[in-house]
Amino acid sequence: MGIVIRPLENRDRAAVHEILAACGVFNDEEVRAALELLDAGIAGGLGGNFPLFAAEADDELRGYVCIGRVPLTRGTWHLYWIAVHPAAQARGIGRALQSHVEDFIRSLGGERLALETSSRADYQRTRHFYQRGGYAQVGFIRDFYKPGDDCIMFCKELTPPPDA
Amino acid sequence: MGIVIRPLENRDRAAVHEILAACGVFNDEEVRAALELLDAGIAGGLGGNFPLFAAEADDELRGYVCIGRVPLTRGTWHLYWIAVHPAAQARGIGRALQSHVEDFIRSLGGERLALETSSRADYQRTRHFYQRGGYAQVGFIRDFYKPGDDCIMFCKELTPPPDA
Repeated sequence: MGIVIRPLENRDRAAVHEILAACGVFNDEEVRAALELLDAGIAGGLGGNFPLFAAEADDELRGYVCIGRVPLTRGTWHLYWIAVHPAAQARGIGRALQSHVEDFIRSLGGERLALETSSRADYQRTRHFYQRGGYAQVGFIRDFYKPGDDCIMFCKELTPPPDA
Repeated sequence: MGIVIRPLENRDRAAVHEILAACGVFNDEEVRAALELLDAGIAGGLGGNFPLFAAEADDELRGYVCIGRVPLTRGTWHLYWIAVHPAAQARGIGRALQSHVEDFIRSLGGERLALETSSRADYQRTRHFYQRGGYAQVGFIRDFYKPGDDCIMFCKELTPPPDA
């Protein structure tokens, strides 16, 4: 199964909405926030504040990612949202999106990618995904999201590629 | 010397600008960003996204603070900016601003206040200020702002006041 990564476009909005809902871990407020950022990101384009990329497999949109520069830093970026349709998980789509944004950030001189995720049990695969991808835990805030739902911060240094 | 804490108003903008410049630790981009958030915060008022408070001593504006709710959390707030004029430091103005926003957040049901600061030597007094105020280090990202300028994350749990 070939995976194609391309900039996200306005016509992808409904498919992203479906993916976010199908994931089952995002509540209504989170889905709304993700779609608001998607709208802002599409309006700004790849040179804007929130670049977005889509992953297609078998001509279907199966995942997306949204990143942004961290203001007042020289080269730190933040990963805001990454989601892959549950029916298409464990096929390398998340990893392809992750590699793509890491390369994109490097190409703009970016130096690291930071993100926050949840300590909840239903985020365990997500945390493993980041750890296997080279992300190290850099922070922890107990009950950050709500009681029993802590924030775990990860970060990856984006060293230049070997042939740079 | 009596310290009065009150909502920040538009007429305070020039005095805040002077304080930020006088502090000496903020570069031009940071001063611009702080003033942008100040403008947004004043426009939104205390019920908006970025509540702002001013500290007056001897009828002069000598410090200010800007906070905001962290989206998608039940009760976590972020401290974006706090600054006290160097000529008025070590007189309890920073502490008065800190206590005031902690009480303000508690009054709205907020549960904790998180913030990020720098590892730079010229931020050592700032880090001590937070530590003495009950903030615990919850994260660290090396070179976050720029090489040699790490991010240190602090957070304080805002338990209800003793008489609650």
